[in-house]
Amino acid sequence: MDDMKEFPLPGSGPQAEEGIVLAPKFDANGLITCVATDARSGDVLMVAHMNAQALQRTIATGDAWYYSRSRKKLWRKGESSGHGQRIIEMRVDCDQDAIWIRVHQHGPGACHTGRRSCFYRSIPLGEGGGATLEFRERERAFDPDVVYGEKKK
Amino acid sequence: MDDMKEFPLPGSGPQAEEGIVLAPKFDANGLITCVATDARSGDVLMVAHMNAQALQRTIATGDAWYYSRSRKKLWRKGESSGHGQRIIEMRVDCDQDAIWIRVHQHGPGACHTGRRSCFYRSIPLGEGGGATLEFRERERAFDPDVVYGEKKK
Repeated sequence: MDDMKEFPLPGSGPQAEEGIVLAPKFDANGLITCVATDARSGDVLMVAHMNAQALQRTIATGDAWYYSRSRKKLWRKGESSGHGQRIIEMRVDCDQDAIWIRVHQHGPGACHTGRRSCFYRSIPLGEGGGATLEFRERERAFDPDVVYGEKKK
Repeated sequence: MDDMKEFPLPGSGPQAEEGIVLAPKFDANGLITCVATDARSGDVLMVAHMNAQALQRTIATGDAWYYSRSRKKLWRKGESSGHGQRIIEMRVDCDQDAIWIRVHQHGPGACHTGRRSCFYRSIPLGEGGGATLEFRERERAFDPDVVYGEKKK
């Protein structure tokens, strides 16, 4: 796949916030945070990272591409699991250092543990809260060993 | 305010993913990414960062506290603007390196530019897409110069 030319250098202040030029602010590792939400339920499915190439391919194809920090590898979500993410809408935030995609999640779930969302545990609030997590989605929607062959994210 | 004792050291693999102990994985700068969504609409309002103290205070009080990387300062969302975030539910992701809070956003908006959400611009998809952003929420819900006195985030 031919990738696009490079993004413009990031601006700051009003240039970044009020402009119509996409000039993403990658961090020191060349990554930008991406939040994927389910376009129907609004639930956050996952938080992951994109490098410039992943962001370019995501824009060009409408499928979510990420950069895995643990595997040091560009990947298309679903390339091994079949659980890809088709983007309904893509947005950038005020200072252009975060991306939000509303997606149609293919297959039973987005999380490599087999759940629909990576955020399957709740943190109780209040003084003394937070010590013990509460499962909100304990059962797996699919068997990750079958879908991924081995645990990976 | 008395802050809680420190969090346990982060685990990895099944320990982090299947356990009921909150052991957040802070990055090299001592921060964890937090996504705040509107509890009613499901829209992403902002992506920000928490250090251990911000996370502790958020859990203890049910109000969103963040750490500003630009101002190098712990802050309670709304402390200067009045536009605080009351947490309806708080979750942690599989490998415990991201937080999701569903909030009741006080006041007209969460963004320091005066919009309801920080994600007020859309990135068009397709080959050649992404060069030009499209405003989805151009008008400001409030005047940031009045609310903040000066631009800050």
